[in-house]
Amino acid sequence: MEQTSQKVDMDHVRLSEDGRYVVILDQSKLPNLAEYLTLETAEDIYEAIFHLRVRGAPAIGICAGYGMYCLAQTIDTDSFDAFYQKLREYGEYLNSSRPTAVNLSWAINRMEQTAYKHKKLPVKEIVKLLGEECRKIHQEDIAMCKKISQYGLSLIKDGDGILTHCNAGPLATSRYGTALGPLILGKEQGMNFHVFADETRPLLQGARLTSYELDKAGIDVTLICDNMASMVMKNGWVQACFVGCDRVAANGDTANKIGTSGVAILAKYYNIPFYVLGPTSTIDMNCPTGEQIKIEERNPDEIKKMFYKQPMAPESVKCFNPAFDVTDHTLIAGIVTEKGICRAPYEESLAALFGEEKEDD
Amino acid sequence: MEQTSQKVDMDHVRLSEDGRYVVILDQSKLPNLAEYLTLETAEDIYEAIFHLRVRGAPAIGICAGYGMYCLAQTIDTDSFDAFYQKLREYGEYLNSSRPTAVNLSWAINRMEQTAYKHKKLPVKEIVKLLGEECRKIHQEDIAMCKKISQYGLSLIKDGDGILTHCNAGPLATSRYGTALGPLILGKEQGMNFHVFADETRPLLQGARLTSYELDKAGIDVTLICDNMASMVMKNGWVQACFVGCDRVAANGDTANKIGTSGVAILAKYYNIPFYVLGPTSTIDMNCPTGEQIKIEERNPDEIKKMFYKQPMAPESVKCFNPAFDVTDHTLIAGIVTEKGICRAPYEESLAALFGEEKEDD
Repeated sequence: MEQTSQKVDMDHVRLSEDGRYVVILDQSKLPNLAEYLTLETAEDIYEAIFHLRVRGAPAIGICAGYGMYCLAQTIDTDSFDAFYQKLREYGEYLNSSRPTAVNLSWAINRMEQTAYKHKKLPVKEIVKLLGEECRKIHQEDIAMCKKISQYGLSLIKDGDGILTHCNAGPLATSRYGTALGPLILGKEQGMNFHVFADETRPLLQGARLTSYELDKAGIDVTLICDNMASMVMKNGWVQACFVGCDRVAANGDTANKIGTSGVAILAKYYNIPFYVLGPTSTIDMNCPTGEQIKIEERNPDEIKKMFYKQPMAPESVKCFNPAFDVTDHTLIAGIVTEKGICRAPYEESLAALFGEEKEDD
Repeated sequence: MEQTSQKVDMDHVRLSEDGRYVVILDQSKLPNLAEYLTLETAEDIYEAIFHLRVRGAPAIGICAGYGMYCLAQTIDTDSFDAFYQKLREYGEYLNSSRPTAVNLSWAINRMEQTAYKHKKLPVKEIVKLLGEECRKIHQEDIAMCKKISQYGLSLIKDGDGILTHCNAGPLATSRYGTALGPLILGKEQGMNFHVFADETRPLLQGARLTSYELDKAGIDVTLICDNMASMVMKNGWVQACFVGCDRVAANGDTANKIGTSGVAILAKYYNIPFYVLGPTSTIDMNCPTGEQIKIEERNPDEIKKMFYKQPMAPESVKCFNPAFDVTDHTLIAGIVTEKGICRAPYEESLAALFGEEKEDD
């Protein structure tokens, strides 16, 4: 398969040309370096997800899908049981790389189920079907992001100021992205928005990725520190908040990058609608409320060393470094999915999404 | 005058041994380097305040007081008018180094008024009186911090979790500090608090200074990114918020380090009392509300370069970098001064502070 540079630029997670490895743009090096990595082993994939070289729930799902396919190719057996057991071992291993993002387990399960559904076929055939399945996950994500972007765009108007936290753009997903999708789609349609991008400590996804993506897309973006959101809102510069999501519980409680719940509380205080944008794969109907969402804690050096060797805090000082927080559903004006915009009460509107799906199937 | 190392360690802003220069601990180098600087010229003093080598409203006031005295010594004239004109020129220049901190203009005015009040005396005598006045400013600040600490301590109990933003400890003031004073005083009395220190982007005063000071004082401190405050509060770990202030308007609106208003809104949401601690010199009764407080905007590189040369955001991206924000008085549970704790309605309780003072004088 020929790769055009255009394609490479848009597909930050993809298969290598020979279809044996996962290729990713190393997001941890942006904005100073746009470097692609070839992930060959399960350990490579785990490491890339764990160290946020590939990040954003949908992108992690796509990466895990491709990863499962590549690993499936390495399983040297004709026995389905042996094949399936090894595949599940890989799945379990990859799934432990980041506990909060539901797309990770969702994509891994989907790959495993695809294998199981065709257990009567020769292993080689199953591997081929897995290759189709992971490409489908990616293609579906592109279509999904476009839909989310369209729904999201209906919530804002030309000239609006939009505040976003962390990164839920093309890098985190495919093509349009989720939270940034409406802005990129609107820009294509000649609309202009003023975006305020929270830098998003400790790993600065907003500074390194969101401002980078929006700037490249020609969208007016102003970078702020997370603690400046209150003042920007108070100044009347923000008409809506758009954020992505890592896991949405059945009642609408939403886990997203640490700091999101704070943005939502500020938005409520200043009467600014706060929207969550994400694919239905991020909604976990088996998780009743935010209370049940496990929050990953990360290395204190992410806070204390600020990407460099010289410490910015005394070595002896403790840090608390949760990667996510949970935004209470009462703070959310709408959850924008590829199937439409859900409003409170979320127990009903989110359930309806999946009810319809069952009827369609 | 002999300087003991104990004294040096406690007085981060002081006169040189010969009384001709201002000596400061360069706070911008902490926590990695504790370096003292001798400020000889008006430009040195301006630069030290502008670049936050000395920071914290009270410490800036003390530095400006000493600075005015040192500069007064350099004015070579016997004519009061010529002396006073030059002194006021120095005052105007120093006053322009940081527009938001009221203590700066307060200390400069106090020094100028001291000179004016004694205009009949020989210039040499006036300079001597200025030397006494600036030492008095410092001594009064130490006594004030102790009082504030005592009042603040009455608001919390042993074992409480306290969240603080930016730095209002000994480095920012003298000895006990303001917002950190109750914690340090409580520690001396055998009490234990759990302090959560917001790192305070962009200049990380919380990471570099607050966690450093509390750690040195043996107080249990956990460093968090600013955007983690919501989660820490949600977890029930915070019983009160203590912050300093750079300027308090007559209605209680409070300017303090950028992000403070966000902390106050979160505290309100989680029903946690939010207290402002500061000397009455920070209260500006000539400023009716927060609307009239001028907010300093600083260099975008503070956000984008993160203390280092390698950019953490694309060069082309705009930044908004306000140094302060204004916390609405409705979010403040109490303003703790050396004269007692003011409660809403603040127009009355703050005015009463100054009313009493007039009666005393």
